[in-house]
Amino acid sequence: MMKLAVSPPILMRSLRKAFFCSAASKWEGGVSMVQGASRGIGLEFARQLLEKNEKGHVIATCRNPDGATGLLELKRKFMERVNIMQLDVTNESTIQATAASIRESYGSLNLLINASGILSVPNVLQPETTLSKVEKSSLLVAYEVNAIGPILVIKHMWPLLRVGGGSGLERKFAVVANLSARVGSIGDNGLGGWHSYRSSKAALNQLTKTISVEFARKKDPIICILLHPGTVDTDLSRPFQRNVPQGKLFTKEFSVQKLLTIIDNSKPSDNGKFFAWNGQEIPW
Amino acid sequence: MMKLAVSPPILMRSLRKAFFCSAASKWEGGVSMVQGASRGIGLEFARQLLEKNEKGHVIATCRNPDGATGLLELKRKFMERVNIMQLDVTNESTIQATAASIRESYGSLNLLINASGILSVPNVLQPETTLSKVEKSSLLVAYEVNAIGPILVIKHMWPLLRVGGGSGLERKFAVVANLSARVGSIGDNGLGGWHSYRSSKAALNQLTKTISVEFARKKDPIICILLHPGTVDTDLSRPFQRNVPQGKLFTKEFSVQKLLTIIDNSKPSDNGKFFAWNGQEIPW
Ligand SMILES: NC(=O)c1ccc[n+]([C@@H]2O[C@H](COP(=O)([O-])OP(=O)(O)OC[C@H]3O[C@@H](n4cnc5c(N)ncnc54)[C@H](OP(=O)(O)O)[C@@H]3O)[C@@H](O)[C@H]2O)c1
Ligand SMILES: NC(=O)c1ccc[n+]([C@@H]2O[C@H](COP(=O)([O-])OP(=O)(O)OC[C@H]3O[C@@H](n4cnc5c(N)ncnc54)[C@H](OP(=O)(O)O)[C@@H]3O)[C@@H](O)[C@H]2O)c1
Repeated sequence: MMKLAVSPPILMRSLRKAFFCSAASKWEGGVSMVQGASRGIGLEFARQLLEKNEKGHVIATCRNPDGATGLLELKRKFMERVNIMQLDVTNESTIQATAASIRESYGSLNLLINASGILSVPNVLQPETTLSKVEKSSLLVAYEVNAIGPILVIKHMWPLLRVGGGSGLERKFAVVANLSARVGSIGDNGLGGWHSYRSSKAALNQLTKTISVEFARKKDPIICILLHPGTVDTDLSRPFQRNVPQGKLFTKEFSVQKLLTIIDNSKPSDNGKFFAWNGQEIPW
Repeated sequence: MMKLAVSPPILMRSLRKAFFCSAASKWEGGVSMVQGASRGIGLEFARQLLEKNEKGHVIATCRNPDGATGLLELKRKFMERVNIMQLDVTNESTIQATAASIRESYGSLNLLINASGILSVPNVLQPETTLSKVEKSSLLVAYEVNAIGPILVIKHMWPLLRVGGGSGLERKFAVVANLSARVGSIGDNGLGGWHSYRSSKAALNQLTKTISVEFARKKDPIICILLHPGTVDTDLSRPFQRNVPQGKLFTKEFSVQKLLTIIDNSKPSDNGKFFAWNGQEIPW
């Protein structure tokens, strides 16, 4: 039997550290995860991350990988730099399985973007025009997908982000970016309506802020930010684009370029803040 | 067969108006509803409303009227000025039944106080000390009781509040007061933790704001406000009172007196605002 010069817990800690350090430094261009990458803004994040950083690896998650044609195209083009994994934010076991798989294959994460979100789902969630139409079932669905989902993803990726943030890449911390929305701002709410969506995003904002406080207190090398992408031409905004003033409907290319600039320039003091596409802070 | 001089819809409208006007003016001291009145702050609201306004009527709702000893005591003392009704905010049919019953017996509401709320429930909801302990089930329970519940109550009481606000009592509008909490403020969140409670109250704040916008736009004679009662000595705060600085733990008598002053002095421009017990506005 091998004789241990150090006690088992210390040995375990050293082994873990050695494993994580080597795992982390293996990924020179960094490892990014884009959650909700089948379509819209999430897919565009995956694309731009792959195009702009020729060494970076991207884990793109979605509910139905086989049907994610945009992602399959990226896979054909960028090959082993893209890893498509199945994840539904309403099913925590898929989040856990993804975390285990990333731990195994990469050992760390430098960036996590939560891009999934719903505003309307036929027969399930209709953006409310009046209090009379507010239904418990819609409020719950929006809350589960838009607020709880991203937070459970962060919960399970937390150990990987901790490793990634301390991995000695150019940026000294990992970044978590949650896609929120200006209509989630309570202070900015002048129009009313959209009760389920608005309140789920306000809850997401509060949960993200709460998490950012813990990361800071524990001196984890991670920051959390909230992003409003502008009104972007995607499936989500399509039914509501008629009232968007000329020039205010962004392409996803433009919006994601702006949001990646915010992420790239982020600093520890941005932790827990809510930014619009142009870098301006949005009131809570 | 009776011949109608006016078309049926107009007749219906006149009849309804006549009924509502007489119903409204019947209740000289006003009709108040306190939702979540079995214990704590809600029970104290019911008590002070009955003691301070000798003509006012109070509908006190709770999950289990038979076990609500504090309310049964008020009933013995104030007799027909108190009406205890069964209402569980997680069961919308009890809200609808209460609305139908109030419509039948009173026809109007001048004040609605949503005082129900949960911070911890054994084996169901534990205030989280870290992200690692965040569970979907707890987030959902807190959301259902603290955010969805009060909003569904307002949804069903809305027609009664509209009548009450226009009933020609001293105050020209009805007041809806939702009990929120300072820890629901995102801007004020410096400590983290309590993810479920914090985010449910942030969602309640956003939902209340959203509703206030509709009431204003429709020129309904109703205002909605959010209230933080301070840290108050009740079952809810009991497990967490150890860290409260001396003199900062209020009695429910003191807190409710302060909150009733805010309600009594409220003006249309307070609609959609969030006040602490001392009248100061709390940031979102
Ligand atoms: N577009 C805008 O104008 C706008 C404005 C403000 C904020 N936002 C926010 O930006 C984010 C992206 O929006 P978008 O415009 O790109 O929307 P989108 O085109 O409708 O895409 C939504 C994405 O979320 C995914 N998703 C939905 N439910 C999911 C679940 N349960 N688990 C995992 N993924 C799920 C969808 O996957 P499937 O393909 O499987 O459905 C899809 O990839 C959202 O959070 C949205 O609220 C958008
Ligand atoms: N105490 C504080 O320091 C403090 C601070 C900030 C904010 N608040 C807020 O003030 C409000 C009142 O709190 P409190 O201190 O009086 O709490 P409490 O003493 O624990 O009383 C809570 C009340 O809510 C009722 N309730 C719980 N679940 C319900 C449901 N599903 N349907 C209907 N009623 C339900 C309870 O009824 P049962 O008797 O049936 O359980 C009880 O009447 C809450 O919204 C709370 O968040 C309190």
